[in-house]
Amino acid sequence: MWGIELQRQSEVPLKRQIYQMFREQIVSGRLRAGEALPSTRELAAELNVSRNTVNEAYDMLLAEGFVASRQGAPTRVAEGISLEQIPVSRPKRPSETARFWEADFATGRPDLRQFPRYVWQQISQKALGDMPLDLLDYSGPQGLPELREEIAAWLFRSKGLTVDARHIFITAGATHALHVIADLVHQEGKEMLVEDPCNRGMLQTLQNKGYPIAPIPVDASGLQTEALQGKRACAVYVTPSHQFPLGGILPAARRAALIRYAREQDCYIVEDDYDSEFRYYGDPVTPLFAMDPERVVYVGTFSKVLFPGLRIGYVILPGKLHHQWRQLRTHTDVQNPPFEQAVLAEFLRTRKFDHHLRKMKKRYRERRQVLLEALAMHFGDTCRSWGDAAGLHLAVEFPGACLDEKFAQACRQSGIRITPVEYHCIQKGRHRDKLLFGYGHLEPEEIRQGVRLLCDVWKSFAK
Amino acid sequence: MWGIELQRQSEVPLKRQIYQMFREQIVSGRLRAGEALPSTRELAAELNVSRNTVNEAYDMLLAEGFVASRQGAPTRVAEGISLEQIPVSRPKRPSETARFWEADFATGRPDLRQFPRYVWQQISQKALGDMPLDLLDYSGPQGLPELREEIAAWLFRSKGLTVDARHIFITAGATHALHVIADLVHQEGKEMLVEDPCNRGMLQTLQNKGYPIAPIPVDASGLQTEALQGKRACAVYVTPSHQFPLGGILPAARRAALIRYAREQDCYIVEDDYDSEFRYYGDPVTPLFAMDPERVVYVGTFSKVLFPGLRIGYVILPGKLHHQWRQLRTHTDVQNPPFEQAVLAEFLRTRKFDHHLRKMKKRYRERRQVLLEALAMHFGDTCRSWGDAAGLHLAVEFPGACLDEKFAQACRQSGIRITPVEYHCIQKGRHRDKLLFGYGHLEPEEIRQGVRLLCDVWKSFAK
Repeated sequence: MWGIELQRQSEVPLKRQIYQMFREQIVSGRLRAGEALPSTRELAAELNVSRNTVNEAYDMLLAEGFVASRQGAPTRVAEGISLEQIPVSRPKRPSETARFWEADFATGRPDLRQFPRYVWQQISQKALGDMPLDLLDYSGPQGLPELREEIAAWLFRSKGLTVDARHIFITAGATHALHVIADLVHQEGKEMLVEDPCNRGMLQTLQNKGYPIAPIPVDASGLQTEALQGKRACAVYVTPSHQFPLGGILPAARRAALIRYAREQDCYIVEDDYDSEFRYYGDPVTPLFAMDPERVVYVGTFSKVLFPGLRIGYVILPGKLHHQWRQLRTHTDVQNPPFEQAVLAEFLRTRKFDHHLRKMKKRYRERRQVLLEALAMHFGDTCRSWGDAAGLHLAVEFPGACLDEKFAQACRQSGIRITPVEYHCIQKGRHRDKLLFGYGHLEPEEIRQGVRLLCDVWKSFAK
Repeated sequence: MWGIELQRQSEVPLKRQIYQMFREQIVSGRLRAGEALPSTRELAAELNVSRNTVNEAYDMLLAEGFVASRQGAPTRVAEGISLEQIPVSRPKRPSETARFWEADFATGRPDLRQFPRYVWQQISQKALGDMPLDLLDYSGPQGLPELREEIAAWLFRSKGLTVDARHIFITAGATHALHVIADLVHQEGKEMLVEDPCNRGMLQTLQNKGYPIAPIPVDASGLQTEALQGKRACAVYVTPSHQFPLGGILPAARRAALIRYAREQDCYIVEDDYDSEFRYYGDPVTPLFAMDPERVVYVGTFSKVLFPGLRIGYVILPGKLHHQWRQLRTHTDVQNPPFEQAVLAEFLRTRKFDHHLRKMKKRYRERRQVLLEALAMHFGDTCRSWGDAAGLHLAVEFPGACLDEKFAQACRQSGIRITPVEYHCIQKGRHRDKLLFGYGHLEPEEIRQGVRLLCDVWKSFAK
């Protein structure tokens, strides 16, 4: 009777089960407007539950307006509730399921096997125990002061930059930084200028904003600053320390030209210093930021050095952008969670970060060397590498070759993940002869094996 | 000579100090294009450092294009680098510095003093130790499967909702959810309809997007659905379980009308269920989502139940929005960090969450009662409370009063933080006689003292 079957073992309380059965019947129209519900006494006896349970179910129906009741009269279904029932779609499996690759030259991946998990855990436990109560509350859109102080200290000892911690704003990584910066620098009727080629993920972040974007070509020395002339820009997005993906260092004269352009246009330069920590012969390149902190918005990230799941980066902002950044961040995602910030601050303070960086730099340098040797062995003079000895990937030119999506697909079919530079190009065709080899996350033997496999595909593709 | 003074105690290596001195002199124009640098031998002797140190400094200058060198010729300053020097602005102190309030009726704040920190710490330590290596890497924009399963299980046992975990997407809180949803549901030429009054922070999140927004008035029963007619909407943003800020439960007939409207318009309903866990007499209100999972985007958050710094919420999405959500999230901030997700999953799995919720519900109910009694004692019949017995705040009407920003300012001057409903109104004037009392985070004595103080301001303001 009444179509109610109670599940007495369920975690859903009986009163809620009764409420739900009625609700479903009312919404589906099986119980019609004006129909009377049974008395609570009658239903309690019928279902063998306490009258109080039924009363509570009816109170819920009443509070939510599914039924109406008047003193002395039976409880009746309210007007205007029934709805045509629409079936719920079955969720699809996301397409991003992990695949095993015979050779995986994905770019931008640090070697997580080398991450000092035990040290991180120890610091985490300490940070958890020490965390003051007010860090559980909103602690502000700028990020933990301790972490910002430690980042400032590290920028000084590693790159010689003098930055006031009050100019540093913690972000949820570089993508998130760019997502907020786009709104920060946007001006109606002006374009955001980007390097071409440029990281496609970052480009997509900008494109999703719907603001106009214009490409500026890149050569072996980075952004071709002479192509800036005549453009009306609100900002220029650049990777001057290690151009992504081609690897050039922007020379001082182009840096100066870029800053002069920004001053003339009264626009900003967004400097993405995504992997400058890993420079294998010589010190890190000094950020463009050092040349004009009032024009350059500097973006740094810890994902490439520690682990991508960390989701902590930072921006250094000119004073006149501080207020608006706080507003935007507050209404985007409020703030970073405090825990990872506190752990990272301690990781920096105790110089565990510097130690890890030194260790990885040595390791990545060796891997880059292994990659160069393997390429020389299998491809000889038919290829040449681009860019500075830095970062976690290498751009390699194969003069005369056409390494487009079709080639990448042939590689995937052979179990090789590799990205043509073309993938990151806005204007297609200019870099069709180049491939990107991410090597940071690969052991030397994996690199050798990968190049060997690639050479096989190459030969069969060239036929 | 050469203006170089080395700091031998500094953490900045000597080679970088030498490099920096030259760089600054070149950029500032003190060293001019074409001028020769001293030979490395000469400078090494001068500074009393090894020749290798000077060589490395020169290599950096060369790599970054500040100088040029030819075999056999001295190293010379490159062309076109000098820039006019612009002083760096001093950062201002942010205005948001914490202030001590005699009485703090801020809304939406849970009582952090009651948070079971020790239990959370224990679970955190376990989660840290158990965390698989691949969670350090990118683990996907949808969030940890374990957490999504636990949220689905909790939705079932607490609200009787049957949700497939594959429809659940983890967010960095409710603000972040709305920030992404706005892009997800936006359609050119259509409006986002919002309740009026509506949480001003959430409204600002939508306004920052630049999409058109239209207000729909709210009464004691929530959104006035008859006002929807004739509007061309891409989405309707509502708080049907406990309207923010007025507190009404949207009755079943209006729920059905809202869903019929959404079906006619082929638009979405965004249901923000921000504090529905805390309903003091009776069970949580069943989400609107249960009536039509294909039309309703459900937004839930853990900030109001656990702690704001956690930054974890979730959305339940109709299948046809899954792909686009993944795209948008990936290019907004990529994903949540894994650690808090793993801890929260375990907190849910072990029912510590349910326990904490029960404890807090009891406590908040008592506090609400204390507030009602204090209001009755000091204001008697000159005020009446609005809304359902739920949540962490109470809307109170003072018929005939004008409780605008001027009143709030008078309160602030007396050390009282309190928000007029007017603050959250889009169309001003309709709710000028109402105040919002956040009470969840206050001890009974703090509530009594706060109402007493407010009454004093009230009397002097009424004069």
